Amino acid sequence: MRHHRISAETVRRLPVYLNALLLSLQQGKNISSSELAAVVGINPLQIRKDFSYFGGFGIRGVGYNIEKLIKQIKKILKLDAQHQAALVGAGNLGSAVLAYPGFAVYGFQIAAAYDNDPTKIGKTINNITIEDAANIKSLKKKNIKIGIITVPRLASQSTANALVDAGVTGILNFSPCRLTVPKKVKVITINIATDLARLPFYMPGAKK
Amino acid sequence: MRHHRISAETVRRLPVYLNALLLSLQQGKNISSSELAAVVGINPLQIRKDFSYFGGFGIRGVGYNIEKLIKQIKKILKLDAQHQAALVGAGNLGSAVLAYPGFAVYGFQIAAAYDNDPTKIGKTINNITIEDAANIKSLKKKNIKIGIITVPRLASQSTANALVDAGVTGILNFSPCRLTVPKKVKVITINIATDLARLPFYMPGAKK
Repeated sequence: MRHHRISAETVRRLPVYLNALLLSLQQGKNISSSELAAVVGINPLQIRKDFSYFGGFGIRGVGYNIEKLIKQIKKILKLDAQHQAALVGAGNLGSAVLAYPGFAVYGFQIAAAYDNDPTKIGKTINNITIEDAANIKSLKKKNIKIGIITVPRLASQSTANALVDAGVTGILNFSPCRLTVPKKVKVITINIATDLARLPFYMPGAKK
Repeated sequence: MRHHRISAETVRRLPVYLNALLLSLQQGKNISSSELAAVVGINPLQIRKDFSYFGGFGIRGVGYNIEKLIKQIKKILKLDAQHQAALVGAGNLGSAVLAYPGFAVYGFQIAAAYDNDPTKIGKTINNITIEDAANIKSLKKKNIKIGIITVPRLASQSTANALVDAGVTGILNFSPCRLTVPKKVKVITINIATDLARLPFYMPGAKK
């Protein structure tokens, strides 16, 4: 299977489907593409098109073979193994991310956290003890390849550099700025304002 | 113009384009669809298709008329007016959202914040004084139609109910759970785990 032919937009939707499918499996029921569409708020035609990339599995009127579909999506997204991540920046945002309950469903675990503020180093949040940011280089030994950046905007590029030097190849960036990294490193930037920005479109009379 | 024909997926991408276009305008330069594609990480064909919904504005080899495009996207997204929002839940996540610097570019301003914790009520974060959550109903008088929910998961539905009762018609929800609201109310749920979940796909050797 040639996964690299899957578009970035499909890759963006697969985790959303996966989340809904895992919930549906938990509840022990099948789900049709139109039911899935209603749950995730994505056009059923789009869903069928996305699933056609890897073979379909849908039987009209019956729904998808959920377990097979979950297994396949996990394989494509490389989520069929556990992933450990390191977080840098244990302020308000970092503390919230450390306590976020939604990662485990995808097999993620935040296994290390760093800050450069002496008042934060040594504190424990959600069973993770904050370490000195000077120790980020020890991620290499820990074989942690995912970094989560929750530092202030001005510190985000130097944090990215430190993570890359420590062997990190995937970064989830919460700073509202563009990071410069080597080509082999993937950065996904979360901009919560872009989500807020599509809200008025759907609101009645939101415009003056 | 029939905006309701714009797909949810296009609406999801428009704020991303808008952000890049505003930056480009600030730097005083034109941008072609392929340059824009590189900046936002979306296929140029997709971008041209999205823009064709509202007329195009692109001249091959020259790029888009940025100012016209920005004006048009803002109009479609109803971002051509300022929007005020109220935040509920001034814990770590709420404090981080209150301090988030990325909202102003889209014309959003968080104008009120609430919590039910007496130790938080009266405190000021980013010039906003935290009010008692019992006062959420006063949003009606303030004519604030957008709510941001950053309370713990178990309190999210009752918070949504209170916001809807106060006349809110758009909710940005950070709790990893589904909210039940009247049909006229639009909820956008931010799940940061779904963004993390597409990172391994792009990482070399991320799978064991």
